[in-house]
Amino acid sequence: MKVEVFVTLKPGVLDPQGRAIQHALGSLGFAGVNDVRAGRYIELDLADGTSAADVRSMCEKLLANTVIENYRIVGVS
Amino acid sequence: MKVEVFVTLKPGVLDPQGRAIQHALGSLGFAGVNDVRAGRYIELDLADGTSAADVRSMCEKLLANTVIENYRIVGVS
Repeated sequence: MKVEVFVTLKPGVLDPQGRAIQHALGSLGFAGVNDVRAGRYIELDLADGTSAADVRSMCEKLLANTVIENYRIVGVS
Repeated sequence: MKVEVFVTLKPGVLDPQGRAIQHALGSLGFAGVNDVRAGRYIELDLADGTSAADVRSMCEKLLANTVIENYRIVGVS
């Protein structure tokens, strides 16, 4: 089964990568870029029957740094 | 307006980061992790009226390396 995990920085945490992308887009001539937040997108191909609790545990232990990051799981109920 | 961009490696392109995550999950005792693909998730806060063509151009010029990566845009029609 396919599960998607989105890891993003918590609001208020400085995002230098997002800032760099925003600046670069401006330099390339793209107007109207108010803000950019960069995060990670992880596709997991897991054995059928893997529980939401298991996936949350994967996020808490490895995929996200929960001190500064939030994670969102799509694809497991 | 908020636009989401997902950048992932094209199928067949080796994903060392995904491989490392898969290995680490196994070491942490998580069974049934068949495959892991790691990518980038970018949230763009753009001025209203920014067109899909503009966002595609941002992806083609900066956000994705279209030689080895695919990108998917959500949030702009």
